[in-house]
Amino acid sequence: MVVAARQLIRERGYHATAFSDVLQLSAAPRGSVYFHFPGGKRQLAADVAGVHAQEQVDEIARLAATSTSAAELVAAYVELARDLLVGRSYQQGCAIAPIVLEAAGESDELAEVARQAFATIIASMAARLGAFGLDGAAALRLADATVSSVEGALITARALRHTRPFDSLLPVLVNQANREVASTIGSA
Amino acid sequence: MVVAARQLIRERGYHATAFSDVLQLSAAPRGSVYFHFPGGKRQLAADVAGVHAQEQVDEIARLAATSTSAAELVAAYVELARDLLVGRSYQQGCAIAPIVLEAAGESDELAEVARQAFATIIASMAARLGAFGLDGAAALRLADATVSSVEGALITARALRHTRPFDSLLPVLVNQANREVASTIGSA
Repeated sequence: MVVAARQLIRERGYHATAFSDVLQLSAAPRGSVYFHFPGGKRQLAADVAGVHAQEQVDEIARLAATSTSAAELVAAYVELARDLLVGRSYQQGCAIAPIVLEAAGESDELAEVARQAFATIIASMAARLGAFGLDGAAALRLADATVSSVEGALITARALRHTRPFDSLLPVLVNQANREVASTIGSA
Repeated sequence: MVVAARQLIRERGYHATAFSDVLQLSAAPRGSVYFHFPGGKRQLAADVAGVHAQEQVDEIARLAATSTSAAELVAAYVELARDLLVGRSYQQGCAIAPIVLEAAGESDELAEVARQAFATIIASMAARLGAFGLDGAAALRLADATVSSVEGALITARALRHTRPFDSLLPVLVNQANREVASTIGSA
């Protein structure tokens, strides 16, 4: 159910994802919904945000393991987001963004879930950048910038149906990573 | 009606913005809706996206008039978006993003409207950056990066209820602007 709901939220947003559509896509029996999700659609969306954030944390760990520098990690993160968007024909974006834009205003619980999801992803990126030699403040700055700009490119590239926003952001973030590393070394 | 619809779409997204809410907020007589918007909610949303894009173009022109360099323009653009979000208590984001995330998949017309809106904003930023000395390709790259990353910060900062994403992006974009200017001058 969470897998099906996540796909639909990424394709059409929060409000247009009806419980009945989730049931149909997941082929889950109707009775199981109210058993597993007594909190209804909001609870399902909260679980989707949690799963999405955890997958991002896992992907960042995987990308960090095959990178040798902060610049390589941010480049790999931008490229992964770009390639997944293209691979899904520009039809699936971030699962958390619709919760922020559609539901955070009406539900304090979902606002908190979205806050925690982005805080978790950014902290995870900052920790990996720190392991590549950036000091704490620089790592957090670059993590903020990287996660936020990829979030934006998932919207503009989807609208433009073109990879240009990702391709334009990539050297900007790589340059900043190299600059932060040089400045950390310079001040050490 | 367009002003009211724009506010609601920025606060709660596309699907949660009911025609009846727009009528109530705008105090427009019910009969006028179907007269002015025979295409219904989709037409209203298309008009909202057009107005939003035009306002961005006007703001970019105004910021360019008081800036003396590409770096100053991108900094002013980031600061304006940040200050407006904070001024609205983190409750109103971009009016085009919800159309991309919620409606582009179900309406080719709205997908095209969103594409054109972002293409217009980015082209406008690129033209102003070009006037500050960047060559065409560099201006478009920096415009892509600036508009996309502000778009993302409008989501992550709203979720975090904190200006950090904007504050972290600002020096990244300023550094890139200075780098592109230096490289344009270097190759001239």
